[in-house]
Amino acid sequence: MLFQVEMDVRIPPDLPVETATALKASERKRAQELQRAGLWRHLWRHAGRYANTSIFDVESPQALHDILSELPLFPYMDVKVTALCRHPSSVHDDDR
Amino acid sequence: MLFQVEMDVRIPPDLPVETATALKASERKRAQELQRAGLWRHLWRHAGRYANTSIFDVESPQALHDILSELPLFPYMDVKVTALCRHPSSVHDDDR
Amino acid sequence: MLFQVEMDVRIPPDLPVETATALKASERKRAQELQRAGLWRHLWRHAGRYANTSIFDVESPQALHDILSELPLFPYMDVKVTALCRHPSSVHDDDR
Amino acid sequence: MLFQVEMDVRIPPDLPVETATALKASERKRAQELQRAGLWRHLWRHAGRYANTSIFDVESPQALHDILSELPLFPYMDVKVTALCRHPSSVHDDDR
Amino acid sequence: MLFQVEMDVRIPPDLPVETATALKASERKRAQELQRAGLWRHLWRHAGRYANTSIFDVESPQALHDILSELPLFPYMDVKVTALCRHPSSVHDDDR
Amino acid sequence: MLFQVEMDVRIPPDLPVETATALKASERKRAQELQRAGLWRHLWRHAGRYANTSIFDVESPQALHDILSELPLFPYMDVKVTALCRHPSSVHDDDR
Amino acid sequence: MLFQVEMDVRIPPDLPVETATALKASERKRAQELQRAGLWRHLWRHAGRYANTSIFDVESPQALHDILSELPLFPYMDVKVTALCRHPSSVHDDDR
Amino acid sequence: MLFQVEMDVRIPPDLPVETATALKASERKRAQELQRAGLWRHLWRHAGRYANTSIFDVESPQALHDILSELPLFPYMDVKVTALCRHPSSVHDDDR
Amino acid sequence: MLFQVEMDVRIPPDLPVETATALKASERKRAQELQRAGLWRHLWRHAGRYANTSIFDVESPQALHDILSELPLFPYMDVKVTALCRHPSSVHDDDR
Amino acid sequence: MLFQVEMDVRIPPDLPVETATALKASERKRAQELQRAGLWRHLWRHAGRYANTSIFDVESPQALHDILSELPLFPYMDVKVTALCRHPSSVHDDDR
Repeated sequence: MLFQVEMDVRIPPDLPVETATALKASERKRAQELQRAGLWRHLWRHAGRYANTSIFDVESPQALHDILSELPLFPYMDVKVTALCRHPSSVHDDDR
Repeated sequence: MLFQVEMDVRIPPDLPVETATALKASERKRAQELQRAGLWRHLWRHAGRYANTSIFDVESPQALHDILSELPLFPYMDVKVTALCRHPSSVHDDDR
Repeated sequence: MLFQVEMDVRIPPDLPVETATALKASERKRAQELQRAGLWRHLWRHAGRYANTSIFDVESPQALHDILSELPLFPYMDVKVTALCRHPSSVHDDDR
Repeated sequence: MLFQVEMDVRIPPDLPVETATALKASERKRAQELQRAGLWRHLWRHAGRYANTSIFDVESPQALHDILSELPLFPYMDVKVTALCRHPSSVHDDDR
Repeated sequence: MLFQVEMDVRIPPDLPVETATALKASERKRAQELQRAGLWRHLWRHAGRYANTSIFDVESPQALHDILSELPLFPYMDVKVTALCRHPSSVHDDDR
Repeated sequence: MLFQVEMDVRIPPDLPVETATALKASERKRAQELQRAGLWRHLWRHAGRYANTSIFDVESPQALHDILSELPLFPYMDVKVTALCRHPSSVHDDDR
Repeated sequence: MLFQVEMDVRIPPDLPVETATALKASERKRAQELQRAGLWRHLWRHAGRYANTSIFDVESPQALHDILSELPLFPYMDVKVTALCRHPSSVHDDDR
Repeated sequence: MLFQVEMDVRIPPDLPVETATALKASERKRAQELQRAGLWRHLWRHAGRYANTSIFDVESPQALHDILSELPLFPYMDVKVTALCRHPSSVHDDDR
Repeated sequence: MLFQVEMDVRIPPDLPVETATALKASERKRAQELQRAGLWRHLWRHAGRYANTSIFDVESPQALHDILSELPLFPYMDVKVTALCRHPSSVHDDDR
Repeated sequence: MLFQVEMDVRIPPDLPVETATALKASERKRAQELQRAGLWRHLWRHAGRYANTSIFDVESPQALHDILSELPLFPYMDVKVTALCRHPSSVHDDDR
């Protein structure tokens, strides 16, 4: 099932640069693993903001929680979750 | 380029049923034309609400405006637009 | 899976009394069918307001949407949906 | 009587890991005692967020306050309380 | 137990004057009965607004709901409820 | 004249325990003096939150400001003030 | 004592023109009487909006309420009231 | 021309007392110079809050900005600006 | 001087088509006169919404109010005004 | 294409003065380069606030993101982006 997740990342300006760099690198690595596994179906940047809209394809809300709460940047995120379902007017096979 | 559009539809309960039915039918027809034309890339229902999240792939903000403002249900919508761009961590070819 | 749904009902004061009475009666009938079917697990009134908190146990966001959007009072509701999952500290078997 | 309590936990990222771990362990221990005592009737995680919806069954608002204000993580929580009562359409015996 | 209730009354300007007058008269009558019965302990007007802050002393959230939902002006009110309890610094006997 | 004052107290979790304890003790002492002097007419805790609703009976907005701004916890409070007046439906002598 | 009052006027576009014109004329007449009586000390338009900021000088919140609630346009206003007092840095005699 | 300016001052509780005292003293000195120069026409405290409503009489938005941005407490303020103009119902000569 | 004005237009869906068409035509005519007169310096549509951002160049807040309040669609607008001034980093001559 | 960008800058009061001065100097240098390159078409200060409204003329949302996210003050900004398009009533050639 699909969930829309909007993440606003707020890294405190006084976080040491190396810490921030390491966090971002591990976040990227994990995000790419999850995308390749088919769980993180879409990932778009909000133009001009440190924020993204993502579409997750998971088997349950529990699975979504496990994925999000273990992201390296999770402690720095404001997260908004919207449960999605197929729109009766959609013609796209993958808009489940 | 991609835009995330969230539409909340508020049809007044006292709109005559036939009017509402006709509006929804023409909305669906137009939505499917735009999807088939590749302009309305994704269309998902928000579970439990008369609302959707859509991803449009258009050549300009002007093109987006022309599409949205001519939708049959446009006068009944609250619309929120977010300009998207590629996320540096995306591995999906179509997450332009 | 479980979803928390908060419904605020706003019936316009000028809706004819018979219409409102009929809507509420059919809403109650449907709510009780869904509870007996195990889909509407909990239903609590907010003290002092025409609003409720409900817990639905459905097989997908799609099933939740189908149930909610066909409620007789749906056109008069503001609805807020929160996807729930098991809390690691819960000891209750039915807090899935 | 029943109260719906929504808790958003905001642990500052710079809290020492041991402190956070100890706080969470004592929070879990206390939460389970209260559940076993029948006072904390339901406890659900919001999928994707460090937040929960809880249903407390207490004898008074005072009893609710005493329980919440002594939770180990209380100083890090935003708390929202809603007094509940039986919904006339509920068929569940325990939806008091 | 005590509940703080804030009521914002929004009577549509096009409600016939006699209807509004009758509603207000029956609201006042009911409010005074409830005050004399000791259930509506305090009732203050917000200066400059059609709104009030009230303190109710009832035996349960259910009793509060029954009282409020049967007020003649209830369909025209926005209501906010806050459960109160004794403050440890209060010296007033009746601030239960 | 009467003012409703709602105080949300936000003591930073990293304030030294002794400092917080001393602040709270002097706050309580001052609150009780003001209650005994008849200026702080009511003081109720919001169940489940570090917040209160208070009713002050003072001779002017200036007097209210002097009282509030000198409270020991004032620098840690969010304060909301509402000017009250007698409600035409009140039957309580002391709901001036 | 002084109160800052902000009034947003929302006259429904379908109110008959003569009704609106009559209401505005009586509002202006009453506003000028109150200004000449020294009760409505200042009256400024918000540039570009059907709204104003006013300073009232009255003997009590009750007097303020009586004045505002009898204004001809009161049923069409959103009103926000702020109790003012002398600022310790003011040098103006009339900024009581 | 006139501008209404609302300033909410948020001095962090951990700012050293001497620093805060010095800032407030220079703020007061500057505020009084500007009042005497006729630029800061009114200055009122919000009762019970560290906030004020001010009316500035300046020759341009630029002049307003220069004044506000050089106030000693500016870095600690949330500022809201409203452009004012004469109200057609005002009878006060100085409500320009 | 410059003001940024954001206008959200909300034409009720039940306004007769001819009325709406006539209003929009006279709005456009007036908007173009004001642009040619140099008073309405910029006018941009918000993509996907019935809203615009405008920059007005007027001699006073009063002049701005006179222009806006006489626009044919003014009764259907939510308006937000922001006073602008030259930014010290601007290199554009016309960003006064 | 054009984007309206509103930037609220929040520099923590405890940032060392030299750091803040250096950041602002490099921000100004970069802002002027971008203006001279025709990408940052307009830049206005909000009178009385550390905030601006800017109009960017870029070839894509991606280009906008690259510009904004590399501004020296970006980590201290709240940013709001609005996609603009030509307004049918505009007569200005450069209001594309």
